[in-house]
Amino acid sequence: MKYSPGTALLTDLYELTMLQAYFDAGVNETASFELFVRALPLHRGFLMAAGLEQVLDYLQRLRFSPDELSALSKTGRFSVPFLRSLEHLRFTGDVDALPEGTVFFPDEPMIRITAPMREAQFVESRVMNLAHFETVVASKAARCVLAAPDKLLVDFGLRRAHGAEAALLSARAAYLAGFGGTATVAAGLAFDIPVYGTMAHSYVQAYTDEALAFEAFARSQPANTTLLLDTYDTEAAARKVVALAPLLAREGIAIHGVRLDSGDLGEHARRVRRILDDGGLAAVTIFASGNLDDYRLRQLTAEQAPIDGFGVGTRMNTSADAPYLDCAYKLVEYAGEPRRKRSEGKATWPGRKAVYRLWGANGVMAGDWVTLARERRDGEPLLEAVMRGGVRCDGPVTLQCAREHARRQLRGLPSAQRSLDADEPYPVAVSDGLRELARRLDEGRPT
Amino acid sequence: MKYSPGTALLTDLYELTMLQAYFDAGVNETASFELFVRALPLHRGFLMAAGLEQVLDYLQRLRFSPDELSALSKTGRFSVPFLRSLEHLRFTGDVDALPEGTVFFPDEPMIRITAPMREAQFVESRVMNLAHFETVVASKAARCVLAAPDKLLVDFGLRRAHGAEAALLSARAAYLAGFGGTATVAAGLAFDIPVYGTMAHSYVQAYTDEALAFEAFARSQPANTTLLLDTYDTEAAARKVVALAPLLAREGIAIHGVRLDSGDLGEHARRVRRILDDGGLAAVTIFASGNLDDYRLRQLTAEQAPIDGFGVGTRMNTSADAPYLDCAYKLVEYAGEPRRKRSEGKATWPGRKAVYRLWGANGVMAGDWVTLARERRDGEPLLEAVMRGGVRCDGPVTLQCAREHARRQLRGLPSAQRSLDADEPYPVAVSDGLRELARRLDEGRPT
Repeated sequence: MKYSPGTALLTDLYELTMLQAYFDAGVNETASFELFVRALPLHRGFLMAAGLEQVLDYLQRLRFSPDELSALSKTGRFSVPFLRSLEHLRFTGDVDALPEGTVFFPDEPMIRITAPMREAQFVESRVMNLAHFETVVASKAARCVLAAPDKLLVDFGLRRAHGAEAALLSARAAYLAGFGGTATVAAGLAFDIPVYGTMAHSYVQAYTDEALAFEAFARSQPANTTLLLDTYDTEAAARKVVALAPLLAREGIAIHGVRLDSGDLGEHARRVRRILDDGGLAAVTIFASGNLDDYRLRQLTAEQAPIDGFGVGTRMNTSADAPYLDCAYKLVEYAGEPRRKRSEGKATWPGRKAVYRLWGANGVMAGDWVTLARERRDGEPLLEAVMRGGVRCDGPVTLQCAREHARRQLRGLPSAQRSLDADEPYPVAVSDGLRELARRLDEGRPT
Repeated sequence: MKYSPGTALLTDLYELTMLQAYFDAGVNETASFELFVRALPLHRGFLMAAGLEQVLDYLQRLRFSPDELSALSKTGRFSVPFLRSLEHLRFTGDVDALPEGTVFFPDEPMIRITAPMREAQFVESRVMNLAHFETVVASKAARCVLAAPDKLLVDFGLRRAHGAEAALLSARAAYLAGFGGTATVAAGLAFDIPVYGTMAHSYVQAYTDEALAFEAFARSQPANTTLLLDTYDTEAAARKVVALAPLLAREGIAIHGVRLDSGDLGEHARRVRRILDDGGLAAVTIFASGNLDDYRLRQLTAEQAPIDGFGVGTRMNTSADAPYLDCAYKLVEYAGEPRRKRSEGKATWPGRKAVYRLWGANGVMAGDWVTLARERRDGEPLLEAVMRGGVRCDGPVTLQCAREHARRQLRGLPSAQRSLDADEPYPVAVSDGLRELARRLDEGRPT
């Protein structure tokens, strides 16, 4: 591949053509852009903010390499003075954002970037690419966590994630939302996430005898053996595990768990549990995988299937029922003046905003206010200053801390938003000050 | 980011634990794995193979760096002799595959990898990660191409693609399937794809006057000006373009096109076309974007909306209605013996296979046969030898050639599969030889 994920050229061409036009016209006053979501996907009760760490990393590292400038020059679309200005482009602005793991709702700014226009404009494409995707996955993964409380959930989605970065970042977003680990080795190493793995059907198939396959695997992985039961006949395989266990025990090898990957997982789990228990293997755990998502997890939880952990892949990593959010990165203020887009069905609230959250005495979220940044409200202000003048306000927040924040946020979700079939909206009120500003802008609009 | 897309550690942990077990037991005979799709998503009539180029690139480059081996060593899961064996792991096997751009159907092997077991097993995760995703996108993009014949389609999806690699590879897959270009600069440079760009609403909002914004942009991009009309009022903006054009014309600047991005695109296009035509701007093209996909394109085509080109983003890049395929990479032969998995609902056809396509006299696909690799049938054999002994059989197929192949394939689609609501399956027959083999394996199955 001739690209690296860090390239400044991972951008839409229009960012560069606009920058050339801004350059030519000398447009570079301070601009504020806000990233927000217009509406929740169907049946979704909330979103979970994620991806900020990668956004800040991108902003800190942003620069055009000589090779990249040379490639741009060869397109013939840009002037030499403009290309020279890109050589010195760095992100020198401010970022205010919801901490990762924060539950949020439509119209609430998730990230605000305030910087000279060219910087703030240019970063749009990659900032959205990062923050949108991780938020999509964290929001889906959080539903899985709610649907299977107290179970070990492991990200199994590398193979059907949308490319390399999707695999890595979805492992991160899922862990942030409460998953216990990932199967993706590179994600485990990159983000310090626990890594889990078992075996594939092909491993069992490579042997002429399933029991021999199990035995060889247990000897090879004595500290951590999970055997896959469904290559041929799940219950027959469970009985082979029972027969094998005492032989291995004599050598000090304990079988840790078994995995089910097809058929009616709840029913197989009950039968396998009985076979294992009757065979003296009550300590052997049952792990299940195969087309799982929040809805299937809820069902298995409801029927009290004796499953200790789940491998959740494709449908979580791609957020299959809602693989994107209706989000936007919009100019809300330029040169000190609030701005508002009025496109049909896509009008935005103008000005720099704040979000305040009211908490009930029971520790449950009771409603949010979206206000102008200069207004004051009761409640917890949700946006935090995370970068000033291109420098991070604190060191990187650890993923563990963000995960703990996410856990507390999920604990505070109202029951209507906690439900997988959420159809009752969470109360988000827009302040009078904000409404008044929008009205004032509409009246004085250019014609 | 502490990872690179090329890392050998972009793999599921179980590939490595299986390899350790194979290593310990001396298992490394020749294995054949086939990547195939079990079933089409709802309303899908066909799939388009894509991603082979990236798969072959991955196989050629596969190796563990000293840093990666050291990271694995620190996990404490692997033996020193095994880690030493990984130091020398290279892909030395054979690959047979459908050329990129080939239309294919369930049960037809898309890629077959034949290699010593450890190599063939290890590459599973990343091979699927690449081939699955590009196939998902090419298949969706092909439907957009069928829905808007003879229109310029441009990939607009970077911002909501699932990370960096998804943005780059979806631009490639869409171009392969017949799109005319992408907005993503890095994708254009990496894959030699035409790059298109216009302006954002924020550009217009940065000016106090929309006409001034248009004028500044046209002066800055005189060779390639496309003006965005819907920041405030689409038709009013079109009239501003008409007023501006003669002023610019005096300086030799021609406005190339306008873009619509919200509201009823067909209706706005008709009104704007009339305003432009009445203003003497019949040569100015209309480009439309905003929540477009195959279904919306079909509707706009049906109503003959006067739109010359479309920016198609999110719903294409994420294949929003079917963001994943039910695909698998399954062991079909080991040490010269065919293998079959029989998991409930997931049984696979055993043995190395071939696919033959029958073509009608009218140049339309008339049905496929899936056979054993050693069987011979009439028809066009679809799988090609693309790698032997770890070496590519030919140089890289250019994306242009693959795109031409895709175009011919789409031209040969039967009308039932060409329809966006395909519910009539394409005839794929399984040979008697293959059925007989599956029966024989089932009868002699291990118990």
